[in-house]
This record gives sequence, C-alpha cells and structure tokens, in this order.
Amino acid sequence: MNKNYQIEIEKAHIRIKSAIHLTPILTSESIDLLAGCNLYFKCENFQKIGAFKMRGAANAVFQLTGNSAINGITTHSSGNHAQAVALAAKEAGLHAKIVMPSDAPKVKIAAVKGYGAEVVLCEPTLQAREDGVQKIIKEDGFVFIHPYDNWEVIYGQGTCAKEIYEQEVDLDALLVPIGGGGLMAGSILSTLAYSPNTQIIGCEPKGADDAYQSWKSGKHIPQTNPNTIADGLKTSVGKINFPIIMENVAAILTVTDEEIIAAMRLIYERLKIVIEPSCAVPLAVVLANKALFEGKRLALILTGGNVDLAELPF
Amino acid sequence: MNKNYQIEIEKAHIRIKSAIHLTPILTSESIDLLAGCNLYFKCENFQKIGAFKMRGAANAVFQLTGNSAINGITTHSSGNHAQAVALAAKEAGLHAKIVMPSDAPKVKIAAVKGYGAEVVLCEPTLQAREDGVQKIIKEDGFVFIHPYDNWEVIYGQGTCAKEIYEQEVDLDALLVPIGGGGLMAGSILSTLAYSPNTQIIGCEPKGADDAYQSWKSGKHIPQTNPNTIADGLKTSVGKINFPIIMENVAAILTVTDEEIIAAMRLIYERLKIVIEPSCAVPLAVVLANKALFEGKRLALILTGGNVDLAELPF
Repeated sequence: MNKNYQIEIEKAHIRIKSAIHLTPILTSESIDLLAGCNLYFKCENFQKIGAFKMRGAANAVFQLTGNSAINGITTHSSGNHAQAVALAAKEAGLHAKIVMPSDAPKVKIAAVKGYGAEVVLCEPTLQAREDGVQKIIKEDGFVFIHPYDNWEVIYGQGTCAKEIYEQEVDLDALLVPIGGGGLMAGSILSTLAYSPNTQIIGCEPKGADDAYQSWKSGKHIPQTNPNTIADGLKTSVGKINFPIIMENVAAILTVTDEEIIAAMRLIYERLKIVIEPSCAVPLAVVLANKALFEGKRLALILTGGNVDLAELPF
Repeated sequence: MNKNYQIEIEKAHIRIKSAIHLTPILTSESIDLLAGCNLYFKCENFQKIGAFKMRGAANAVFQLTGNSAINGITTHSSGNHAQAVALAAKEAGLHAKIVMPSDAPKVKIAAVKGYGAEVVLCEPTLQAREDGVQKIIKEDGFVFIHPYDNWEVIYGQGTCAKEIYEQEVDLDALLVPIGGGGLMAGSILSTLAYSPNTQIIGCEPKGADDAYQSWKSGKHIPQTNPNTIADGLKTSVGKINFPIIMENVAAILTVTDEEIIAAMRLIYERLKIVIEPSCAVPLAVVLANKALFEGKRLALILTGGNVDLAELPF
C-alpha cells in the first residue's frame, strides 16, 4: 500500500483525538456460542453524536482551521453526518449551515441547532439538497464537507479500525457495513497499514446491495430503489471509495432484512446496547455464514445508535 | 459500623470474582447537562445473566461448596434470581432445582434450563412457590437461597458498591432502587466501609413505595397491591434488610411511572444501553429533585437489562 495513507490516518487520529471517544469493544459469550467464533464488537454507538460519523466530520473540519479564507462549513444530510459536522464546526469555532430535508425527524433538526449550526430546510429530494448546498458555497463562500466521498472524511473514519487493531490483535477478519463506503474505505486503509493479515469483509442488506453487485460485475453500479430496514446503508458507494473497496475486500456478503432484525435483537438482548439496524448487518452476515467463520476472531463495527425507539422492529 | 461487615464483603468479592464481570461506569455529558450534576451509571445490565443478582447468588452458593452435606440448591423466582442461582450452581458443580411459576416467560424458563438447572413449575402464587421449595428442602435435602433476605446474598450485592468506590472517588451520594432491599442493604454496608461520607438515597416508584412508607412511619409496612412499570421493585423489603435501610438512608425518594419512563427513555437515547424499567428509578429521582442534587457527584446503580423488547413503553 501507499504509505502516505498510514501517515494521513495517523495525522487524522491526532487531530481529532480530543473531539472523539475511544469507544470500547464488547464481547458476549452467548453470542460467540451461537456464532461458533469469537466476536469483538467495536461500539461506535457510544461515539460522540452517537455514530462513527463524528470521526470523519471532525477530521475534515479540523484540517480546515487555520485557513483564514474559510467563512464556514456546509453540508446536506438528514441524520448523523449533519450532527457530526455541526458539532465539529462548533468545536473548531467555525460557522456551519446544514441543508436538511423538510421531512427530517424534528429531533435531529433540533440536535443540529443545539450544536449552534444554522439549519436550512429544503424539499426532500437529493436535487434540492445539492442545490441548497451550492447556493451556500457560492453566496457565503462556505466549504462543503461531503459525507463519504472526501479523502479527509475517509481518513477520519479509518481511525476506528486503527483503534480496533490497538485494542485487539490477531484478528482474522474485519466486517464492516457498506453504505456510501467512507467507513469501509477508511477501514481498508487502516487494515492494510496496521493489520495486513486481517481479511476485510463488506456487509450489505440484500435490499441495498450496490457494492455487492458492483464487486460481482466489476462495474460501478449505483443503488436504485433501495428497500431495507438498514436505512443508513441505502446510499450508493462513492467514487473515491469504489476502487479502494473493489481492490481490497476478500468478499462482500449480503443478508435479508429478517436476518438483520434477528441479529439486531440478539445485540439488544445479549449485549444490552442500543444500535441502529445498519449495525446489525455484520452480525447477520456471520450468523448466515457460520461455516465460513468457524473458530475465527472477527471484529465487527457497530456504526451508531441513533434509532427511533418507537420504530424498533420487535 | 461493625467491621465484620467489611470483612464479609471483602470475602464475598474474592469468592465471586471469577464468576462476575467488573462492570463499567458510563457517563453522559448531555444527561449531566439536563440534570445539573455529575452522574456515574454503574452498569449491572452488563453483569452475568444481565443483572446484579448474579453477585448475591454466586456468593450464597459458593460459600456452601466444600460442605459435603449439600445435596443441591433450590429457590423460587420468576426472573433474574432464578437464572443467577442456576448459573452459580452450575459453576459450583451443584445440582439446582428452581421453582418457577407456570406463567413465567418461556425465555426465562429456557434460560434457567440452559444453565443446567431442573425447573419445577407451580401455580403462579407465592404460596405455591414457597410450598414447592419446602418440598424440595424436605425431600431432597437441598439448601434454599432466599433472593434478598439472606446475609450471604446481601454481602454479594454489596460488592457492586465496593466496585463503584474503587472506580470513582469523592461521590456525594449513591442512589439505589429498593425492591426486597438486598442490593440497598449491601450497598449501605459497602458505603459505610469504603466511602462513609457518601450519602445513601433510596429510590422507589410511587406505585410500590413500602420502604418509603416504612421509613416515614418508623414501622415495617409490607407492600400490598403494587402497581408500577418497575416490576423488579414490587417486592416488600425483607426482614434483615429493613433495619439496615431505616438506620442508614439519608432519604427515600419516590417517583411516578411517567417520570420513570422518561428517565428510561433518556438512558436508551443518550447512553445507548438497554435497561429494565426499575433501573431508571434513580435517574428519575435525580431529575425530579434537581435543586437537591445541584453540582453533586452521584453514583446510580443500573440494576439489570433483562427486558422484554416487545413491551418497551415507548
């Protein structure tokens, strides 16, 4: 691998260290027994703002500070990235204007405002969101932080796997869910740098399997009409992340929503923690492929815990 | 205090150490901001069998081993104590017969059997449960482990507060929910031994406030017709626990089910962990008495996480 990636992830980790939590790794004897292997759950649901997104947003925002030409930060998001950028901008002392769709949950809009960011509501379409951001870039001179297709965001997300390899050694595989691919790409760069013998397994819901289809066909196939409970994974893989993922995953494995819900329930019942449906995809992959992982030591990233408790699927 | 208590808790902790988890203390900046004080949540929901009950059961069972006259262990319980005694007996290599009411959740009956214990189903009345246990004591010569009115159980529960004082210093108060009073009594004995300047606050639902009524009147008033979502706290305070509690609490404070549910939701949303309703009572007490606790450092015991996810009140 290009050694520069390692240097960039090291720099990112130093840059964001005071703004993030070193999240714990949890284990469960009873889940291990069911799965037939040893599972290490990296709990990004305990991260600041409740999701790994804080790592990438903080790195992207903090590396801009000191540049006097920066008027402020902007992005569009209905969820975790919006909160992460708002909090990172607040900690950096920068203005933030976040474009959010008018149908975003009120509690998320309130959280973004609570971090001191200005919220610009728009129609709930991707076009309206992108237009809103373009207007802020042009009129206010703000810098756009893409949620996943941005090298500084990818390096920031890579600090999660770096921590895993500092917390646990001799891992046979790292299982990561794939949405836009920022966490997956960052995890790959960290694995190549810090634990090159660890296999990398991408995990997707069958109802949003663009990375799997792309990997199988060798072509970048965007996601259309995603349909899955794992709402954090409906996004198409980004342009920067695509080649990194295609060249480095040992496999991409997919699971049904029923398998995702059963794994989610196991995590609530046995680990006693609150997670989003997307987080359960790697465990569902393990349970659906027991022979493949028998006796192995596997790390699984639990990406976040910002779930609407009234909408739990059990 | 009688120094023997400290010695007994030390012995209990050594005895059970390999059978329990040293559970973490979690904190939340956002809950602290809401509460106006610093809260340290001791996470017994992460304990073996998912509740603090493992501490007392393990101590009571393990101190019997080596006595060749012991044929086995028995108790009656519909929930956490049953699982705790079953697992402790398994680890001690002793037989266990657990009397459970026929309306106990199937998943709990299966869990007890999963630990290798024999389950004796009975009619769902206290009388039938006690008769069932008496029969096992007489016919099989088994030893009964009372869920809370048992000195070894109390010493075992006391190891939870001992750990808190080893993990955090200078705590102004410890807040503990009161059901049968075993955890409260054990916490009191540990506090007197390890952190005598820390105030002890009992916490109860208004719908099962026998300890509060007893404390106010100076008489032991048993609970009748409890009505609260905090189902772990419906029990009357035990005979051994009663005088320990009455002599040592700074106060017993009560909260409504609405306040309990709001606190429970906060813990799910901000700490991202799964807890039983009973666990939320101390946080509800803090939020209902902000002026009393302003700026203080408070430890709260989250007693367990064995909740039916289909029955969450939100």
